[in-house]
Amino acid sequence: MSNERIERGIEVLESLRKGGAQGVQKGYSEIAPDMAEHILGFIFGDLYGRPGFDLKTKQMITITALAVLGFAKPQLAYHIENGLNIGLTRDDIINIFIHISGYAGFPAALTAMSTAKEVFEKLDGKTKA
Amino acid sequence: MSNERIERGIEVLESLRKGGAQGVQKGYSEIAPDMAEHILGFIFGDLYGRPGFDLKTKQMITITALAVLGFAKPQLAYHIENGLNIGLTRDDIINIFIHISGYAGFPAALTAMSTAKEVFEKLDGKTKA
Amino acid sequence: MSNERIERGIEVLESLRKGGAQGVQKGYSEIAPDMAEHILGFIFGDLYGRPGFDLKTKQMITITALAVLGFAKPQLAYHIENGLNIGLTRDDIINIFIHISGYAGFPAALTAMSTAKEVFEKLDGKTKA
Amino acid sequence: MSNERIERGIEVLESLRKGGAQGVQKGYSEIAPDMAEHILGFIFGDLYGRPGFDLKTKQMITITALAVLGFAKPQLAYHIENGLNIGLTRDDIINIFIHISGYAGFPAALTAMSTAKEVFEKLDGKTKA
Amino acid sequence: MSNERIERGIEVLESLRKGGAQGVQKGYSEIAPDMAEHILGFIFGDLYGRPGFDLKTKQMITITALAVLGFAKPQLAYHIENGLNIGLTRDDIINIFIHISGYAGFPAALTAMSTAKEVFEKLDGKTKA
Amino acid sequence: MSNERIERGIEVLESLRKGGAQGVQKGYSEIAPDMAEHILGFIFGDLYGRPGFDLKTKQMITITALAVLGFAKPQLAYHIENGLNIGLTRDDIINIFIHISGYAGFPAALTAMSTAKEVFEKLDGKTKA
Repeated sequence: MSNERIERGIEVLESLRKGGAQGVQKGYSEIAPDMAEHILGFIFGDLYGRPGFDLKTKQMITITALAVLGFAKPQLAYHIENGLNIGLTRDDIINIFIHISGYAGFPAALTAMSTAKEVFEKLDGKTKA
Repeated sequence: MSNERIERGIEVLESLRKGGAQGVQKGYSEIAPDMAEHILGFIFGDLYGRPGFDLKTKQMITITALAVLGFAKPQLAYHIENGLNIGLTRDDIINIFIHISGYAGFPAALTAMSTAKEVFEKLDGKTKA
Repeated sequence: MSNERIERGIEVLESLRKGGAQGVQKGYSEIAPDMAEHILGFIFGDLYGRPGFDLKTKQMITITALAVLGFAKPQLAYHIENGLNIGLTRDDIINIFIHISGYAGFPAALTAMSTAKEVFEKLDGKTKA
Repeated sequence: MSNERIERGIEVLESLRKGGAQGVQKGYSEIAPDMAEHILGFIFGDLYGRPGFDLKTKQMITITALAVLGFAKPQLAYHIENGLNIGLTRDDIINIFIHISGYAGFPAALTAMSTAKEVFEKLDGKTKA
Repeated sequence: MSNERIERGIEVLESLRKGGAQGVQKGYSEIAPDMAEHILGFIFGDLYGRPGFDLKTKQMITITALAVLGFAKPQLAYHIENGLNIGLTRDDIINIFIHISGYAGFPAALTAMSTAKEVFEKLDGKTKA
Repeated sequence: MSNERIERGIEVLESLRKGGAQGVQKGYSEIAPDMAEHILGFIFGDLYGRPGFDLKTKQMITITALAVLGFAKPQLAYHIENGLNIGLTRDDIINIFIHISGYAGFPAALTAMSTAKEVFEKLDGKTKA
């Protein structure tokens, strides 16, 4: 698993989350080896690695998208952490979820807020992950 | 239909789209008079009028949310126009839709891109609205 | 295509919409003959024909569900007409859509409202179907 | 946090669930103070507090919407309890979920039914919340 | 609960999962007796029992649909097991989820993959169900 | 725009639809030049070009996914045509949509069926595209 796109994806993901690339590779090594390539190559290499927005803005768009989907709790928690790592504040994240209440409805907004709360408490050492 | 929230909503919407408030009021005056109040009071007064992000960032979040929903073509066209009015570039809007392809899938991204294309062509006078 | 469930479905659909059963049968006779059986037998026979709510309440639940789905415009128009036929008022239908704005978001609510407007105008002879 | 809309929302929510308003205020006091205002002011003040349907019918529409969304389990549990408090029977709630199987599919219907089962068992003292 | 459709549904479900019909009947006997009839009669009798695709292909379509929905984890786990019982390999199931990443997005694909992992580990005796 | 993945994607897409790659490149050349790369490289190169299922099975999974999404009508029409080109029959496509009625609900199934009908009629020369 190595080429320019994947190398770029690894680099980008490492800048969002230390050890992130290894996490992806290990997470899918047994069940779906080439899924790790798609995540690193397409998601983090092509989408996060392309020009346009900076990483902070891209994380904001990702977090919005995941909150609107409603069901994507583990992915949302993961990208809330990435967002905090790259410069979004906790208030930024809450502000995203309040804003989408008008577009995706309150259940999506409140579900996202509850995921944010769990991430914040984990980071504050109040709960074990 | 007049109070502080709605006044704020009218003001905010006017800054996004000249004549926007009147458009909302006329659009719902017959079929659902109080829907105009909820749109002006809650969406534009409470959500756009609250502190947190600036209007440009709020339009970016709205456009992301609408693109992820997939079915909301008229609302997406409306908010693409608002976004362009408030300082988003056409490239910004396309960049949002490319980024969400990884989260909501390519059909949602391409559907949004096709709506953007129609809005851009309307603004360029290539088509009649 | 004839048995007790389907007979009940035909009877129920006829009480919602005169000529409705024939419409279903003709609509699917070429492309998917047994789809008509599932619509008449399962949807109108089993679901509308079972005890529990009266037909008016069942139409209200159907209209809510279709509005929340967002993409189901022709089906929503069809069931708005059924609802009006069985005793829901135009205000009832608009009230449903205002209420779901908080749960499915404003784009779903406004999309549904726009479908309702088209149905009402068709019934008022303002537009051709 | 006090004005006419919010006061009405508090009153309505209290009639659906004793101590409900305080629950909302405490639940969001730290993470998103103004979210409580939107829930009380817009959802319970504007939507539940507006004329049109009675509260029982509004809860039926809410429960339908949440079941169709599929992912909104905690919100669905909350509103199933509200619905039971305001006069919906357990059978009514199950009847809603059976009916939506035709519109949102069996997975949404069965997921909602499983949430209902958990609420009923909690109320019967069979499980701890 | 006994007629030709339901008998066929019971037979089909038994061929997908030994004891499956009894599982459905017991699961809904208290809370929604006629839901079991709809699951056995419509889903397994009408849909799985009709001509067209063989059961293995039908399970592939079901698994795709459930993965795209995103929220339907227990139903997806159930049908992954059915699919393995009827001849789909673990690789087939993973291949479905990789393919849908382009259409429903990576969060739906990864959520499904995580459900598959849990099913595989349960079958391997690594976890208790 | 040229590398191994994109070359494979072009080749695969050409085998599904003559002139398809040029269609993608021209369709996005102005509005989003690198979107064409993602469609050809990721969707047709990575997903359709990877081992696992044959192209006919992959089209079946794609068609199922698009039908479940509900809103993706132009993409569904496109992939129904691809499916017919690669060996799916019209009956296969209708059978997919009948089967998903149980999982995504009848509105999604009927919306897809209506798209199929339009594609079939276009191919039969009954309508102009």
